[in-house]
Amino acid sequence: MFKLSKRLFSTLKFKRGDFARLVDSDITHFESIVGKENVKTTELDLYNTDWMKSFKGNSTCVLLPQTAQQVSAILKHCFHRYLAVVPQSGNTGLVGASVPVFDEIILSTSKLRNNFNLDLSSGILECDSGFILEELESRLAPQGYIMPIDLGAKGSCLIGGNVATAAGGIRFIRYGSMHSNVLGLQVALADQNGTLLELGTGLRKDNSGLHSHHLFVGSEGQLGIITGIKMLVAPKPTSICSMWLGTDSFEKCQKILREAKTKLGEVLSAFEFLDAETLRCLKENENLDKPLETASKYNLLIETSGSNPVHDMEKVDGFLSYCLENELAKDGILAKNQTEASYLWKLRETATLALMHDGYVYKNDVSLPLKYYYELTDVVRERLGDKAIRVINYGHLGDGNAHLNITTKKFSQEVYDLLYPFIYKWVTEKGGSISAEHGIGQLKKPYIHLGKHEKELSLNKELKKIFDPKGILNPYKMIDL
Amino acid sequence: MFKLSKRLFSTLKFKRGDFARLVDSDITHFESIVGKENVKTTELDLYNTDWMKSFKGNSTCVLLPQTAQQVSAILKHCFHRYLAVVPQSGNTGLVGASVPVFDEIILSTSKLRNNFNLDLSSGILECDSGFILEELESRLAPQGYIMPIDLGAKGSCLIGGNVATAAGGIRFIRYGSMHSNVLGLQVALADQNGTLLELGTGLRKDNSGLHSHHLFVGSEGQLGIITGIKMLVAPKPTSICSMWLGTDSFEKCQKILREAKTKLGEVLSAFEFLDAETLRCLKENENLDKPLETASKYNLLIETSGSNPVHDMEKVDGFLSYCLENELAKDGILAKNQTEASYLWKLRETATLALMHDGYVYKNDVSLPLKYYYELTDVVRERLGDKAIRVINYGHLGDGNAHLNITTKKFSQEVYDLLYPFIYKWVTEKGGSISAEHGIGQLKKPYIHLGKHEKELSLNKELKKIFDPKGILNPYKMIDL
Repeated sequence: MFKLSKRLFSTLKFKRGDFARLVDSDITHFESIVGKENVKTTELDLYNTDWMKSFKGNSTCVLLPQTAQQVSAILKHCFHRYLAVVPQSGNTGLVGASVPVFDEIILSTSKLRNNFNLDLSSGILECDSGFILEELESRLAPQGYIMPIDLGAKGSCLIGGNVATAAGGIRFIRYGSMHSNVLGLQVALADQNGTLLELGTGLRKDNSGLHSHHLFVGSEGQLGIITGIKMLVAPKPTSICSMWLGTDSFEKCQKILREAKTKLGEVLSAFEFLDAETLRCLKENENLDKPLETASKYNLLIETSGSNPVHDMEKVDGFLSYCLENELAKDGILAKNQTEASYLWKLRETATLALMHDGYVYKNDVSLPLKYYYELTDVVRERLGDKAIRVINYGHLGDGNAHLNITTKKFSQEVYDLLYPFIYKWVTEKGGSISAEHGIGQLKKPYIHLGKHEKELSLNKELKKIFDPKGILNPYKMIDL
Repeated sequence: MFKLSKRLFSTLKFKRGDFARLVDSDITHFESIVGKENVKTTELDLYNTDWMKSFKGNSTCVLLPQTAQQVSAILKHCFHRYLAVVPQSGNTGLVGASVPVFDEIILSTSKLRNNFNLDLSSGILECDSGFILEELESRLAPQGYIMPIDLGAKGSCLIGGNVATAAGGIRFIRYGSMHSNVLGLQVALADQNGTLLELGTGLRKDNSGLHSHHLFVGSEGQLGIITGIKMLVAPKPTSICSMWLGTDSFEKCQKILREAKTKLGEVLSAFEFLDAETLRCLKENENLDKPLETASKYNLLIETSGSNPVHDMEKVDGFLSYCLENELAKDGILAKNQTEASYLWKLRETATLALMHDGYVYKNDVSLPLKYYYELTDVVRERLGDKAIRVINYGHLGDGNAHLNITTKKFSQEVYDLLYPFIYKWVTEKGGSISAEHGIGQLKKPYIHLGKHEKELSLNKELKKIFDPKGILNPYKMIDL
């Protein structure tokens, strides 16, 4: 079931570049680098297709290098032969960035998983880029550490892809962006030597040159292939509290956020949002009941993580009492145990799935200044009238990140045309971002110019040329030479 | 009293580039852009000299633009005339990055101080780059926020310079690096249009393109001039505890750090280090007594900042008891009031000043993996024998940042030659950084290649060329075309 995005973007919009075509001697050369068993030329569907099954490429060759040196040798060969390459990490992205558009060679980083070293005093992790996020989490736990990121795809996504896409997720409000945690990167360039560079260091502070490794954070495989990572990990919290608040005023949601920052302070670890429509969808499509008896227009799932359960509970009590006594929230509940907490999180995490029962979903991932966070939902609702089954908004309110979703029974070009580029223009005019965490890839390529100075886009091309002079890395996507 | 660094680096090593010489019509043009009162051509010593009085340039023109548009117009003119420009912020740096080497025009950002806007819900500050750090702190305080950085120069340094130098300081361990907090930058480029770019956004999450604003963090004025900043600020803590621990084992310092991260967890806000020699120097040169009766080889000044005094104190009690009972520390003290806390911080903050009484100070600012953090001090001590008055180490142990200082009565070339490049090579071999927070500027220019791949240095030149095609910004320093 290949859907709209495939039809609209992959087939219609892109034209194959004049890259070389793969020939037998290339395969032989790759086999000499990574071994026969790590060159795949059959049964490539899983690699050619993104996990939403919205994008499909036609690569005939997947390479599975096991060392950074092998990645380097591959890129060197591809540079000289002018072969296009799509770097593929966990392939869990939502914008078609990690699958080929045409016949690009797929370079999978999933076997780059030899080096793993944690410095217990500094909390600095050095590892290869092919480790699964959840696996790193499991390896860190017995040492008293956690990964500073957590996201739905943790069982499949790889840490290198997390860095390359500046992955966000639910720990963002507490531990910050990838820029907060990445200290150094090993990258392989698609230049004449397949240069292997160590950018940055495994140090918290290093002002000994340009901080160019930060350019690779969120670069979506446009500049080089991340082979190794040095990053901060976080001490494991020993106490976690989850609570739910309902209110009918979005202004009060903002006030509650402010109070959470003050009263929960350093233990605040999640501040998630679900509107009433999301809860209705969860009931209708997944038979999940809302957690409060009263229905509220706006719902907040708030979490704390700390090092002392008694202290955290006292802070939470103070915060909840304040919100209820001052009528910021009209109702609220504190999870009494792990089961109750899991139920609250289940509501938030099932939202994406629940929508799919309606038929077709128009997904959006935008950032907005908080004052506009919900306005867009109302605007879109009014714009579509009864043409949509639902217009719902859930997301990471604490980070200004809204997942606005619209459902229809089947794909409707009319609805599509009412939504796009309307939404992207509206968001850009309000100082927001058309992609908060999912990135550009193929899906948002047509809109990348919105809100950007023409000069910024031309500078980006120049930046790409420095690292990837022939433009063979991940063509047709974020930056096209 | 111009000292070594001036003699060694400025005069001896650099040769004036073939930039144009300033003529009267340039001055007239600048006056038409910023007004006569904002073009200074006399009494320029304060602008030509760094605050350590180690570096002195010979500029004959200081420009004080008040808007980003004026900065843009100045850079456009300088581009077309091929006039070199040194961007100057608070001029509090320690490596001679913000003063001219020859006759570069000085572009001071100190009058860029019109826009100031704080979003109370999101805690995102948007402001011009010319605000003094301490002034921002004062403006935020009544709103319940603090700046995420704090450093000794806060009364003079400007926020734009803090970003351009990736300033560290004592809140680093808690709020992270500039990369953690900067969300977007407005920068003026030295290109044919003096292009004014908005890179990034005032949003916590934005994956709508390359994160190129991060390239300007720590770029030392090589790529463009930062005119505006969008950054996260932090909720103001309502409770602060300071404590001091002494131990004779550096391994135990590392264990204490780990325990602090676990037991103080989310409230840990400083983890500073002073060796016994530093305390001896404070006594001999400033008559400041050590805080504990027993002398310890290694001393730790630890601080917590939280939102609940009772909770914080309980955590601190638990942590201190653990360290003493388990003999990680042989002695310790918790400041009972603000006066006692101030005294502990006075010891740490006076260390730099105390050294100067000895005569000449060889200052070092390095990052090291923790296991090597103190070893360098012992190595240097043995290497110099009785040629030095003192070899001392204090710094931000929690960040791996060591300030190794050596004093002699007068500058000694023999000592200098024993120290450099020995220290830089030693640090690089151990995976450390030759500049943790002070940067490169003029002082460390000769050593910038240490530990860097040749390709990284050539890439940096290419990066500079993209933003500053004629290489007129801050020449002779971090990146020289």
